Amino acid sequence: MARFEPQDPLFEARVRASFARQRAMALIGASLSAVRPGEVEIGIPYREDLTQQHGFIHGGIVGMIADSASGYAAFSLMPADASVLTVEYKLNLLAPAEGEALLARGRVVRAGRTLVIAEARVSALTEGREIEIAASLSTLMVLAGRPDRPRAANAEEVPTSSRPSQRAPLPLD
Amino acid sequence: MARFEPQDPLFEARVRASFARQRAMALIGASLSAVRPGEVEIGIPYREDLTQQHGFIHGGIVGMIADSASGYAAFSLMPADASVLTVEYKLNLLAPAEGEALLARGRVVRAGRTLVIAEARVSALTEGREIEIAASLSTLMVLAGRPDRPRAANAEEVPTSSRPSQRAPLPLD
Amino acid sequence: MARFEPQDPLFEARVRASFARQRAMALIGASLSAVRPGEVEIGIPYREDLTQQHGFIHGGIVGMIADSASGYAAFSLMPADASVLTVEYKLNLLAPAEGEALLARGRVVRAGRTLVIAEARVSALTEGREIEIAASLSTLMVLAGRPDRPRAANAEEVPTSSRPSQRAPLPLD
Amino acid sequence: MARFEPQDPLFEARVRASFARQRAMALIGASLSAVRPGEVEIGIPYREDLTQQHGFIHGGIVGMIADSASGYAAFSLMPADASVLTVEYKLNLLAPAEGEALLARGRVVRAGRTLVIAEARVSALTEGREIEIAASLSTLMVLAGRPDRPRAANAEEVPTSSRPSQRAPLPLD
Repeated sequence: MARFEPQDPLFEARVRASFARQRAMALIGASLSAVRPGEVEIGIPYREDLTQQHGFIHGGIVGMIADSASGYAAFSLMPADASVLTVEYKLNLLAPAEGEALLARGRVVRAGRTLVIAEARVSALTEGREIEIAASLSTLMVLAGRPDRPRAANAEEVPTSSRPSQRAPLPLD
Repeated sequence: MARFEPQDPLFEARVRASFARQRAMALIGASLSAVRPGEVEIGIPYREDLTQQHGFIHGGIVGMIADSASGYAAFSLMPADASVLTVEYKLNLLAPAEGEALLARGRVVRAGRTLVIAEARVSALTEGREIEIAASLSTLMVLAGRPDRPRAANAEEVPTSSRPSQRAPLPLD
Repeated sequence: MARFEPQDPLFEARVRASFARQRAMALIGASLSAVRPGEVEIGIPYREDLTQQHGFIHGGIVGMIADSASGYAAFSLMPADASVLTVEYKLNLLAPAEGEALLARGRVVRAGRTLVIAEARVSALTEGREIEIAASLSTLMVLAGRPDRPRAANAEEVPTSSRPSQRAPLPLD
Repeated sequence: MARFEPQDPLFEARVRASFARQRAMALIGASLSAVRPGEVEIGIPYREDLTQQHGFIHGGIVGMIADSASGYAAFSLMPADASVLTVEYKLNLLAPAEGEALLARGRVVRAGRTLVIAEARVSALTEGREIEIAASLSTLMVLAGRPDRPRAANAEEVPTSSRPSQRAPLPLD
């Protein structure tokens, strides 16, 4: 039973297309493992180049996937012509981020017209066992009327004045 | 005039050595631009592969450098035989992370024996102009008696029972 | 030198009138000691009935004055016909809240059209000495077109349909 | 099925005795409605003197009961000779705090030896209906060997040197 009713029936395709444009997610090897209305899961396999000085995955990387899972959980409930922006997030690290992979599960707590509150839990997976290693609570903003579309392939050809969707969405404007 | 007196006169070398072992900082192109007692600056040049779907640097990357700058600001004031762990951080994004480079400035707010509170401000730099794009407030933990040393080059030769400093530091143990 | 230019020249009167309607501030003995553009100070004298189980002022009371000081710092910069709502706040307690009085200083970090980010520091005052006991970072929302006016003295006489300013401002609508 | 095993079989009496010493909880009319291992509920009836300028219960009061519910959820799992201190909390307000009563449910997310992470949800109750109005995420600290006992009734008669439990527990010492 779904907790939330999506406004856009094509929400999953919209989330996946936006995620695919997040170059930073590719950099850390993240993939979108589940997209449901108000719930998104993002995973990363363990990699040496994601670690901090003790050999665990860096707390900031943990924050990245928690933030993205929460942001896309929020985005899944937004209208088709909106963008999402993170206003703020707070992350508690619960245990060392070690294991074969990390999985961040984002989940909307409350969806408003302008703001969406979401939470995430991040688990470390080792030999089929799962340990909760982080918890977050976030505030996301709906940027109505600014579709989350790719930039024009050849931006030079597009006059600046006709690129409203490419104007920087400003979280605090 | 220093706001804090370091316990370890060699604090800068200790911070720089630990930072150099943070593989995740290398991954995102981060460098340590300043280390003072209770204050650390970390910068990253803009790179396409650090961006989110709108072409700005990912909020999670902003969080990574804010977290590291705060963590090392805390670490700079700790005794020589301690490690630092992030308990939690909260980050507010103030403006789009665009520009030629980002600079995170971490600063200790209060240094206790077990916990250290630190804050960071992140700025975007463009043609000599600086715009504040994020603010954070963090809680760090002092792991006394667990020096932040590199793992043994050849860990196989070291019996597990004699590797106290290599045991996983557990933030919530 | 003012850091911010108020949009409403009568901001101080507006802040003071709104504060005077906060019954919860009266309950805890709080008073507004300073109102500047983007900066507000709220103090409370120590009282036994504000304490937690160790005899210090309750962390939640510390949060109340930090939240109010931040909220009114934000409100001071808003247009005359707007209300302010707290979206979220994060508070770090730095030291026991003991002493003769507490003083919370709220200060706007960034003022946007829809959201305002503010921070506060709370100090304990004892025999002229001041110790920082808490730090907070908050997100406030501008509710444009909903003036922060008193409710009608005799609400019965006013038809509901003509009381737009008395409709519940909804933080997440 | 209990999620947590209490270390102290008398945890409920210990939580109730400590709560009864929180003068600030009496001030706002709060009562402890449930105490289970790792879970505590605190309620307050609506009162005019708890409101902010719009007539809703003040966000800081909402934070007070969320903080206390989380703190006592953590305290319920601590050894008999420990005290609890709030290190920090972050609260998101989800909807106006109006209704007949508020109920804060605190719940431990992870219990460590030194730090405990807890979350709370606050609901407003109106004619049997319940609406979630706030969510929080907190860090609590275990002060081992400092029992949470009442101060001596007549402190004058007790030599200072023999009052270890009355020494200020310092969160960041």
